[in-house]
This record gives sequence, structure tokens and C-alpha cells, in this order.
Amino acid sequence: MKDNAILLISCPDQRGIVAAVTAFIREHSGNIEDLEQHVDAEAGAFFMRLEWSMEGFRIPREEIGSRFEPVARSFQMKWDLHFSSRQQRVAIFVTREPHCLFDLLARAESGEWNGQIPLIISNRTDLQSAAERFGIPFYVFPITTENKQEQERAELALLEEFRIDLVVLARYMQIVTSRLIEPYRNRIINIHHSFLPAFAGARPYHAAYERGVKIIGATSHYVTETLDEGPIIEQDVVRVSHRESAEKLIRHGKDVEKIVLARAVAAHLEHRILVYGHRTVVFR
Amino acid sequence: MKDNAILLISCPDQRGIVAAVTAFIREHSGNIEDLEQHVDAEAGAFFMRLEWSMEGFRIPREEIGSRFEPVARSFQMKWDLHFSSRQQRVAIFVTREPHCLFDLLARAESGEWNGQIPLIISNRTDLQSAAERFGIPFYVFPITTENKQEQERAELALLEEFRIDLVVLARYMQIVTSRLIEPYRNRIINIHHSFLPAFAGARPYHAAYERGVKIIGATSHYVTETLDEGPIIEQDVVRVSHRESAEKLIRHGKDVEKIVLARAVAAHLEHRILVYGHRTVVFR
Amino acid sequence: MKDNAILLISCPDQRGIVAAVTAFIREHSGNIEDLEQHVDAEAGAFFMRLEWSMEGFRIPREEIGSRFEPVARSFQMKWDLHFSSRQQRVAIFVTREPHCLFDLLARAESGEWNGQIPLIISNRTDLQSAAERFGIPFYVFPITTENKQEQERAELALLEEFRIDLVVLARYMQIVTSRLIEPYRNRIINIHHSFLPAFAGARPYHAAYERGVKIIGATSHYVTETLDEGPIIEQDVVRVSHRESAEKLIRHGKDVEKIVLARAVAAHLEHRILVYGHRTVVFR
Amino acid sequence: MKDNAILLISCPDQRGIVAAVTAFIREHSGNIEDLEQHVDAEAGAFFMRLEWSMEGFRIPREEIGSRFEPVARSFQMKWDLHFSSRQQRVAIFVTREPHCLFDLLARAESGEWNGQIPLIISNRTDLQSAAERFGIPFYVFPITTENKQEQERAELALLEEFRIDLVVLARYMQIVTSRLIEPYRNRIINIHHSFLPAFAGARPYHAAYERGVKIIGATSHYVTETLDEGPIIEQDVVRVSHRESAEKLIRHGKDVEKIVLARAVAAHLEHRILVYGHRTVVFR
Repeated sequence: MKDNAILLISCPDQRGIVAAVTAFIREHSGNIEDLEQHVDAEAGAFFMRLEWSMEGFRIPREEIGSRFEPVARSFQMKWDLHFSSRQQRVAIFVTREPHCLFDLLARAESGEWNGQIPLIISNRTDLQSAAERFGIPFYVFPITTENKQEQERAELALLEEFRIDLVVLARYMQIVTSRLIEPYRNRIINIHHSFLPAFAGARPYHAAYERGVKIIGATSHYVTETLDEGPIIEQDVVRVSHRESAEKLIRHGKDVEKIVLARAVAAHLEHRILVYGHRTVVFR
Repeated sequence: MKDNAILLISCPDQRGIVAAVTAFIREHSGNIEDLEQHVDAEAGAFFMRLEWSMEGFRIPREEIGSRFEPVARSFQMKWDLHFSSRQQRVAIFVTREPHCLFDLLARAESGEWNGQIPLIISNRTDLQSAAERFGIPFYVFPITTENKQEQERAELALLEEFRIDLVVLARYMQIVTSRLIEPYRNRIINIHHSFLPAFAGARPYHAAYERGVKIIGATSHYVTETLDEGPIIEQDVVRVSHRESAEKLIRHGKDVEKIVLARAVAAHLEHRILVYGHRTVVFR
Repeated sequence: MKDNAILLISCPDQRGIVAAVTAFIREHSGNIEDLEQHVDAEAGAFFMRLEWSMEGFRIPREEIGSRFEPVARSFQMKWDLHFSSRQQRVAIFVTREPHCLFDLLARAESGEWNGQIPLIISNRTDLQSAAERFGIPFYVFPITTENKQEQERAELALLEEFRIDLVVLARYMQIVTSRLIEPYRNRIINIHHSFLPAFAGARPYHAAYERGVKIIGATSHYVTETLDEGPIIEQDVVRVSHRESAEKLIRHGKDVEKIVLARAVAAHLEHRILVYGHRTVVFR
Repeated sequence: MKDNAILLISCPDQRGIVAAVTAFIREHSGNIEDLEQHVDAEAGAFFMRLEWSMEGFRIPREEIGSRFEPVARSFQMKWDLHFSSRQQRVAIFVTREPHCLFDLLARAESGEWNGQIPLIISNRTDLQSAAERFGIPFYVFPITTENKQEQERAELALLEEFRIDLVVLARYMQIVTSRLIEPYRNRIINIHHSFLPAFAGARPYHAAYERGVKIIGATSHYVTETLDEGPIIEQDVVRVSHRESAEKLIRHGKDVEKIVLARAVAAHLEHRILVYGHRTVVFR
């Protein structure tokens, strides 16, 4: 595990940003391991991800923020500072489909990620045994129209109790409301089983079959208050033909879903994503 | 050039279709070179494409239809018979974008296809010089709200005069009405510059950019009276990122458009497509 | 679970095969649900997969073979008959990498396949806990130059004791010899972590990195006596760039490996694969 | 057409490079429009592409080099400076296959590129008419073992006379020797019709067919003295199946070839490629 600092910056585009930020790192003997920047010329916006080694860096980690603040202010930056040594805590929400859940659990267990999964939440009990296979606490919150508000509050309390950093909706078949979204803004990732914006809403594979498309896909995105319209993080597709029934589309689609979701979660855990408007910058 | 017969069949699914049809070919000493069939179990529909060599086949080509008719009737078949030795005649409609036009012309010239392009029709003069490079007559029919009906009639007359089999809308930026669609039902192929049903309508790349998708695509389909909703023949995609401006999406998209359109045209010219409802069976 | 019969046929190409086979099914009231055929014109070889419903079929399953034999003989067919109602038994061989193993276990557990996994075999103990999570017996056969012959015999005995139909080498890092290959000809599937024939042998990702390729891939194939040269069943790729280190190639590659392996196993379990020479016909 | 300066830099990785270079641009009022950097940690190498607007930049273009030299020297940089306002001159070499040639000509004519094609060179006359369609001089240099040295000298003289910046081998079926490679080091782009390093050498599609691969590809690379081993610029693939004969692989492959070649040429013309060892950094 490297001990790196990661700085995510967004600000109005202007001259001298890169020079100022890299000079700051350099002055304090930081060795830049990765720098990516992006300018949205039309929006006049500047984005940067900077990763440098803490080894030999002359500012202690708790002071980096205050020491960087003058640079940030002079360019009206929004910024976030992360450390690769800190392992993030991920809660997974599921309903009935196991493929994304199993895939996420296997990755966590294999050490593919710098993240741990302290709990799984579901509105049903179907996937309890899957959770148990991996020894992870499984909490069931059945949702009805009447109890939704109360259940979401209980879920939120649990997320806070477990100090959860990221929520992953791994084919969770309930609409999440602003009670959860607000405190976890840009920290709830959903997988939608279509190539958005095509086939938003329910039963996308059946809709894709009906329309006779030759390619199906999946989309991972941050959850916002508007269903299936949050900022897209990752998408991928698979070619199909007239031979595939709706059931076969579902089967082929599952493989795309789990890969697309896993890529989005990995990018988030590595602090590679900047959200602006309803778009994302995903540095590789 | 092979001298093959190609039979396209659709009928209600029932026992014994393949046996009956292949027995018919066999009885008259036909050697089947390719047979593909597809059953849509849900719709109870059967589709088949059969290609056999005319060499040694004991029925002369003009009598095959009448001799096959009893078999067809007993299974309530709709069928079409084609001969690979007959070169099809393709009209291309364009407006301003040259990439699909150049690609189609180059393929025809290179002998990639069993088709010829006797004329190009446009509502503007922009691509006249491209047509002239390949020595193909270029007809201009400027379209206004007032003259549209009249111009389409003139276009149709021209298509008939040139005995056109297939119309290809190669980024033709006018809506084609039923005056042309009706006589060329399932014989007008359009390329739409998005992954339908996402981003139907105008300016799809700008819409894709706005939505922040990570993959863009193109769709070729038969033209119906409902814009961008005809049966899809072929689709393909290309991965993009936040780095691509709308202008770069357009540029990357052009490559996908021309390949997707060319594949659809090739499939049509080889009699590989069966339309049912608003879906297609495309045999490879 | 459907109760279907599946017939896989290969024979010299000749007139009347399809007619004869479909007539046989029809005579005994079989309803063909899927028929795919392929002619390799150059090799003069014919291949067919026929799936029909046993419901209402007038020959009991144990007699189908003998009743079909005259048809088969008249066309010099090699054929295999399978029934979808019979669940196949799959042994997985592993070494250290867990991603393919977890993926296969999750699919079996989720009921994605018509197959069960009664045992896992390894030359090391690393993945024992993964096997235990899914409650599957895990047998360890450490391999040295001295004991290889003896250990393979013991493995073979175990495979026979468990009546294993298919062996899957899920990143098993030992060369399997003809002692195992011979009795499991075309029933051992390996995943190689490159796009074969590029980068056969050890450390393919490092070789790919060194060569500076822009796409990496994975290949599943039947195991033969010649390393990495067995008939290819499935391949897929993922785009990479100069940004990816060899370690990142390994990480991206894992996702391709597990999907490619799973597709090959699924195709085998559904009896969609015919091997001829060192090529495969994989019906979709 | 933008009036931008583009600086390509490679040097040993060390602290402060980005800060120093961006400070240089900033001091002279340059507005950075695009900055991409890459560190190859293993090789200890640093690469950067910097594009800034010449509008308002206070150093005249002919002095930028000498003014930048002290910065460059202090970091032991190799660097190249380009201006987007300068149109590059591209020579295309062909033999018999027209698809890449037509594609390149159509792109140049459509203004897709900041490049012009003043001449086409061939060892045969087959594609003369294609060149004539686009009004481009076509020079024929038939090559035999005896005259190869002499003909290459004549070709080189022609390239110099036409002040050619880039040579594109668009399915040119002759081996180019160091006589041409040396003066055009990293300025000759070839398209090889396979996914290198698989199927290097002659008849790759037939070799791919024989091997039974499920995916075929194409590779564009800079030409070096070792056949098919130059630094890879771009690759892409297309899925195939047992249904495709070697001839169909050739046909599908052509589409991949022309797109892959065009992408490589575009990247070169936009000064996005840095070569080191036998690898490339291709900034997007």
C-alpha cells in the first residue's frame, strides 16, 4: 500500500493553475506520481487530480489543507484531499439479484480494492445467504409506502454508525430518496441495467428486446433525486442479435452490469472522479 | 461471382418446415451452401434464409417460384427469392456530410459489394464534387415546406426511371415521407448518428455530450413513417471520455456511422435481412 | 428447466443432411426449438446442432441413439446426444488467483448454469478459504517434478470418483499432461491470460506491456498436449493505453479472463461447441 | 484553425518538471489549452504534451525554442515544438488494396485533418485511377530485387522534393529498408492487418482463420528495420466466429484496418505521439 496524497481540484479555468499547484508540491519536496488535468473550454472550467508521495513530503498530513488554502483561494478552487493509506468503508444495498453482490464481495475479499465492506443492506432476505458466505452483517429493511421514511432513517443511522464512506446500490430495486442522497451526495453509486439514457426505468432488457436493438449495455452513475439521471461514471455494452430472447439479454447483461459497477466503484475508491453539473470527469 | 439462389422465408412456427424446404431443394439437386433459421418462440414465428447453388439445380430460375408455391402455401409462408447474379441498383441521398458518401462510393468502386450506384440525390449542392470524383450523376432537389410534395414526386420518378432497388440515406437531413417510404418499404436504409433509442432527433452528439455518456454510437435502420423508430439493422459504438468535446464526439462518431451504414447496406444487398414488426432478423 | 434433446453432428458435407435429420425428428413428432448448421466449404465439412423438445417426442430417450443410427450411418456422421435435464458435474482446478474461481462459484450458486461444482482441486492451499465460503470440498495436490505423475493419477481417480463431466482450469498454474487430457479430451477448458496466439507462455501481461500493445485480451480453449494451442472457444479484449503499468494490465485483464472463461464454460454446458481439427464451431 | 503551439517533452523523471514548464508558459502570458503528462515509473521516464494558444503569447514563434532551451537543459529534456497552423504534407504508399487509400483521401478532402496529400507512390499501377479520382499525382516505382536500392533512392528524392513530413504505408506490400526509414525515423506509419504480435508476416487473415481465433484485429505502428515490430500506435479488433471464411475475415478486417490507420495518422498529425524504446505514448 502506497502512502500517497491525492488532491482533487476544480475551479474556473485561468492562467497559472498548474504552475501554482505543482510549485506548492515541489516547494515542500513532494514527488508527483500522477497528474491529470482537464479543461472544459466551453464551460470555462478546470479540473485536476494530483497524486504525490508522502514520503519525504515536508508538511504533515493534518496541515496540508491549511497550508494549501491560500493557493486554493487565489484560484477560487473547490478541492478535496485524500490519502491512499486510508481504507474506505463501503455499504452495499441489494434486493434479489446476486451477480453484482457476489462480484463486489469477491473483489473486496481478493484485495483488489482499497476498501472494506462492513455491512450489506437489503429490503428482502433473498441474498442473506450470500452475505453469510462472506461473513458480512446483513440488515433487512422491508420497504412499504407507509414505512419508507422511517426505514430510510434507520438505514441512514446504520450508515453513520458504521462510518460508511460510499454506498453502492448493487441492483437495489427501491428508489432512494433525498433523505439518503443529501448526506451522501456523490457518494451513492447505482448500476442501471441499460445503456442510459436509452431504456431508463423498469424492465430495460424487455424494452431493449422489444425495440430490437443490436447492442445492450449498463450504466453506473451517482444517484440524484431524478431517477436514472445522475452523473454517469462508466458504461459498457455487449453485442446481441435477433437470436437473443429477452431472457438471454438479461443473462448477457448481467456480466456487463457487474463489470461496469466494479469499475465505477474502483474509480471512486481511488479518488479519480470529479462531478460537475450532471457530468463526471473520470481520470484513468 | 457465384450463381446462387437465396430464399427468405417467414411463417408461423410449426413442425416440419425445415424438412419440407430442404427436401424441395434436394429433390431438384440443389446443393445448400448456407442455411440459417430463427424461431421467435414468444411470437411463434419462424424465419429462414436458404442459399443454394444454381449449378446443377434442375428448375430454371423463372419457374422456381411457381414450383415452390405449394410448399410455401402449406406453411402459410411469406417468401422472397433472389439471385446473387443480379446486381442491385442503389441510390444514395445526401446533404452536407461527405464521410458516409465517400465510404459507400469507395466500396462500390472497389467491388466490395454486389451493387452499383447509378445516381446520387441531394437537397443541396455541397457534395456535388464528391459525386463527380466518382463520375456518378448528382441530382439536386432543394426542399422547402412548399415544394416538398412535388420534389418527392420528382425524386420518386427518378428512382423508378433508374430502376432503383435500394435507397440509402447517407446523412440526408430531410425527413422522408410516406410518398417515398410506401413504394420503398423496407428498402430505404438510414444512418442515425446515435445509439438509438438514445438521442433520437436532432443534434444527438450535442445531447450525448450534455448527458455525459461514456460511449457514443450509431444506428442504421429501415425508414418508417415514425422518425428514428424504424427496424434497427445494425449498431455500433465507440468509447469516449470527459476529454471529448461535442466536436470531438462528432469526429469519432463519423467513423462509427460509416461502418454501421456500410454493414447494413451489405446485409441488405446480400439478402440477409428479414423484417417483422419493428424488429429485424439479420443472418450473418 | 426445459426437457430438451440436443444433437451435435459433424460429417462430410453432402446433399440432403438437413432434410434427413429434420425428417427424422418430425416423423416422431419432435418440435425443433433450435437448429444451427455450419458448412466449412473449404474443408468440405458439415456441422449441426439441433435442439428439440422431448415433450410429445415418440421415442424414449434411451432408444433415440439406436433409432437415429441408420440416418447417421448413411451420412458418415459423428454425433453426440445430450439431454438438457441432466445436470453436468464440473471440477475446478486453481492455484493462487481467486477471480475466476469466485466468478464460477457465484454463477453456479446463482443458478446461472445447468451445472454443479462438486469439488475444487489445487496444487496449493491459497484458495482453500474461498472454497470453504461456498462449502465445496477442496483437494490439494502439491506438484513437484518427482511426484507429478503420481499426483495426476490421484487427481484422475478423484475426477472419476466424483463422475466429473468437465474440468475447468481457472488460472491453474501447472501444465496438465496427457494422463488427464486423454480421458478428458475436449472436456478440459483453460483460460489463458492473453489474446492467443499473442503472448503464449508465462507472464503474458508483462510481455504485452513490453510490446506496448493498445489492447489486451484473454482466451479460453480446450486443453491439448501442446501448451496454449488447443482449440479456441472464446476470446475478448479490453483497450489499454500507455498509462497502464504491467500491474494495471493484470488488474484490467482479470475482468476479461473471468468473463471469457465463464462464457466458454456456459457454451460447453449447453452443448454448443463442436471441435474439429484445432478449431471450434460455437453455436450461439 | 487554431493558432496553437504544441510542445512534446521527454526526460528523466524528476521533481519540478511540470512546475518549471508551466511557469515558463505562464511568464510569457501563454494560456494552456491542454496538458497531458505521463510518468513511466519503472523506466523513470517523464513525458508531456503541452498545447497553448499563441494568441497573446509574448515570445515570437521563431524564438520560443531558444528561450525554452535553458529550461529544457536543466531537466535533460528531449523536446519538439510544433505549430497547429502549419499544415503537414503526407505521402501515401500503396500497392493493390484500395480501402485504406480511399479512406485517407476522403478524410483529407473532407478537411478532417490538418494535412494534405501531395503525392501517392506505388509499386504497381492498380490504384492509379483511385488517385486520379482525387486529382493527386501518382508515381509508380516497380520494385525487383535488383532495382530496390535504386528505386528507394528515387522515392526518397521525391519525398524530399515534395517536402513530405509523414509517410503512410496504406497496405504497401513491399518491405521498406533503412534507406527510407532512417531519414523518416518515427515518421513512417504502417498498417498491419493483424492484431500484433499475433500473426506477424504474410497472410495474417489466413493464419487467423487456421488458428480459429474469435477476434481479428489490425495494428498501426511506426516502421522500424525489424518487420512488424515497430512501436504500436493504435490497434482495434472485430469479433468473428466459425461462420467467417478466411475471405470474410479479410472483408471484415478491411474496415478495422482503415479506421486504425486513420486514427494513427490523425494522432501523428496532431502531435500526440511520443516514441520511447519500442513503445508509444499516445495522448488523446
